[in-house]
Amino acid sequence: MPSSRSLSHDLGISRNTVVSAYDQLLAEGWLSARQGSGTWVAEGRAFDSVVDALTETGRHNDLIYDMSPGTPDLSGFPRAAWMAAAKRAITDAPDTRLGYGDPRGTLELRLALAEYLGRTRGVVASEDRVVICSGAVQGLFLSLRTLAEFGIDTVAVESACFDISRQQIDRADMDLVPLSVDHDGVRVDQLIRSRAQVVLLTPAHQFPWGVPLSAERRGQVIRWAQATGGMIIEDDYDGEFRYDRRPIGALQGLAPDHVIYQGSASKALAPGIRIGWMVLPEPMVKAITALRQTIDLHTGVFEQLALAEFIRAGAYDRHIRKARLRYRNRRDQLAAMLDEHAPHVGISGIAAGLHALLTLPGDLTIERDTLARARDVGLSLAGLSRFRCEPKDSDQGGLVVGYGATPNHSFPAALNLLRRILPARVAGA
Amino acid sequence: MPSSRSLSHDLGISRNTVVSAYDQLLAEGWLSARQGSGTWVAEGRAFDSVVDALTETGRHNDLIYDMSPGTPDLSGFPRAAWMAAAKRAITDAPDTRLGYGDPRGTLELRLALAEYLGRTRGVVASEDRVVICSGAVQGLFLSLRTLAEFGIDTVAVESACFDISRQQIDRADMDLVPLSVDHDGVRVDQLIRSRAQVVLLTPAHQFPWGVPLSAERRGQVIRWAQATGGMIIEDDYDGEFRYDRRPIGALQGLAPDHVIYQGSASKALAPGIRIGWMVLPEPMVKAITALRQTIDLHTGVFEQLALAEFIRAGAYDRHIRKARLRYRNRRDQLAAMLDEHAPHVGISGIAAGLHALLTLPGDLTIERDTLARARDVGLSLAGLSRFRCEPKDSDQGGLVVGYGATPNHSFPAALNLLRRILPARVAGA
Repeated sequence: MPSSRSLSHDLGISRNTVVSAYDQLLAEGWLSARQGSGTWVAEGRAFDSVVDALTETGRHNDLIYDMSPGTPDLSGFPRAAWMAAAKRAITDAPDTRLGYGDPRGTLELRLALAEYLGRTRGVVASEDRVVICSGAVQGLFLSLRTLAEFGIDTVAVESACFDISRQQIDRADMDLVPLSVDHDGVRVDQLIRSRAQVVLLTPAHQFPWGVPLSAERRGQVIRWAQATGGMIIEDDYDGEFRYDRRPIGALQGLAPDHVIYQGSASKALAPGIRIGWMVLPEPMVKAITALRQTIDLHTGVFEQLALAEFIRAGAYDRHIRKARLRYRNRRDQLAAMLDEHAPHVGISGIAAGLHALLTLPGDLTIERDTLARARDVGLSLAGLSRFRCEPKDSDQGGLVVGYGATPNHSFPAALNLLRRILPARVAGA
Repeated sequence: MPSSRSLSHDLGISRNTVVSAYDQLLAEGWLSARQGSGTWVAEGRAFDSVVDALTETGRHNDLIYDMSPGTPDLSGFPRAAWMAAAKRAITDAPDTRLGYGDPRGTLELRLALAEYLGRTRGVVASEDRVVICSGAVQGLFLSLRTLAEFGIDTVAVESACFDISRQQIDRADMDLVPLSVDHDGVRVDQLIRSRAQVVLLTPAHQFPWGVPLSAERRGQVIRWAQATGGMIIEDDYDGEFRYDRRPIGALQGLAPDHVIYQGSASKALAPGIRIGWMVLPEPMVKAITALRQTIDLHTGVFEQLALAEFIRAGAYDRHIRKARLRYRNRRDQLAAMLDEHAPHVGISGIAAGLHALLTLPGDLTIERDTLARARDVGLSLAGLSRFRCEPKDSDQGGLVVGYGATPNHSFPAALNLLRRILPARVAGA
């Protein structure tokens, strides 16, 4: 079992509460404590039995297992390395840096990201095209409003995509054109026939289906942009986490003047840090910077300098290598569980990222029932239909299962709950 | 002289550069070094003579003395105390806090601010009315956009005010009604006769004139809001720094349901931190929070938790007490210099804040010429006309002199430069 200290961190409760819970479980014989070597699940009390005990009585003390997509394992946040970087930022930043700063972000962070994104994602970036923002959500907000000021009123999106992106397009009073996605990624032919001047894509790992955009389609969409003056917004939300050997670089590297590249530290480090970045076509830099200044000037300086130092010191690379191994292992466990217990449930999009798409044997009714069972047992999950644009182009049921969010020690229990709430094989299917 | 380490911090240059500059000044006899007790201005070489030497040759190596309003002394930023608070935040934050968080801000910071603002500014605040934002600029952005969604299209402002506030009203496509300011503060009778539904005020210390809003006018504007359903946006940008014995509390305390109260850590700590706060009428909380979520979700969590800890530990109060003494002393030096060398230049607004308004003996031509001389000697200053609404209601020349920004060790030199660029007494005046 995890130490009481780390479990109290994971769950956000006081350590005393954890200690008394452990005492109770020790007293009931579920756990055994060995002097100096921590707390262990008692012999003959396999972890599954504990989960059985919990789930038989429904939600236990409102404990929620989080398998929603989009959040990394926060228990793996590299606190010591981040602390060292933050300390250096707070100690060494020249006084002038504590004043009103460059709305594009600090030079240190723009330089660090230009190097990092070039090396790891194939992004063509000089620091004067990099603009720091407060998370990818703000990046998209700034991009959409700036494009609206340029007279753009229609944005194409993948027919299932992040719901917050759709809300932002809506808030910006722009029309939305949904494009189908197949096994080669988004259908660029539909884009070409549409009246959209901008397309928002997740080329490395389509959200939520998980397919990468094929080489042919990449060529098509770049040619569309070049021929029409169209703009591609590339949301590279989890590009760092790729598990097969085939590297999928950023689309931006193929046509830097036609792509607004967006990324953030939310998946690689933690969403709470609220740092994102954009790599922009040159004409966009000035307009986006001007808008940023009227909204909130710039992102907090200490956080920016800490991240720059964290990248410079190699801690970002080290953390991502470590996290990648952890997530890959979880993905394998998820796939093995489905293979063994639910071969009638399809799984896709598992070559990268922090989530998999599970296709259910049936329609939206099955999806709704499955989500209701998940709620009953305290498992937080997202249904595929939440991410589909209206009108929905299919009523195939699905689950978007995030294997990032759960802390290591409770991942087996979360997986077990998932197994239990999946629908049974349909008779005759 | 300051240590080479602190001077390199202040100026944002490397310590080697400072050390070689000191060596040069030692070699030329301007400075003398005493083993173990630092570097001193050489006997017989008064600081004024050094300034004379610099200013006789105009700008020296592009060295800029900053007397622009709105920035605190960044060399006084309490690094050690902030470091301790940041360390505690990074070490102790439960993992769950590193994820996507409450768009209103962390509970810790909202609680700390509700207590602090109640105690020091008379703000009536419970934590569920406090919303954290990324600086006061974002607060105003969120307020204006939300009010626009409620159908409000006209905002009254003081006829001279922060230029960025005017830009934001403009960006929000709202009409602007300027209101005159006299020795009792803003002319509420003009507001009552206008068609404005919202008024943006700086009641504690009008920017840039520096007068507080009188008790009678406070009553008038509150009655206007209550009778018409109007809304007051109270920008309490430097309310902590009051030098006379008369406390001027926030307007918000008189009518919490009619005032959007806004403040930030930019003047008390440093603008680079980018943390501000709003205390809102209950119906505004939900709408502003919803808008915040589509813009950028929330402010960085570590900074929020660090500031909460900084306030909780009493470091915020201690820092403000210390800074208040420092600024009061500078204000006294500024007033004494004017009294002695430029009695024909008026000074006002000095009971509070980080700036004074200097009225020049003449019109905008005099102001323009004075600013040109300031630029020539490397003194950064703002002219009053920059803050006036169009059409300008007066052509009285003025300077808005910030005595906060300059580090302690160069304040005498900055003051000396200011003395030199002030216009001479007009013949016959």
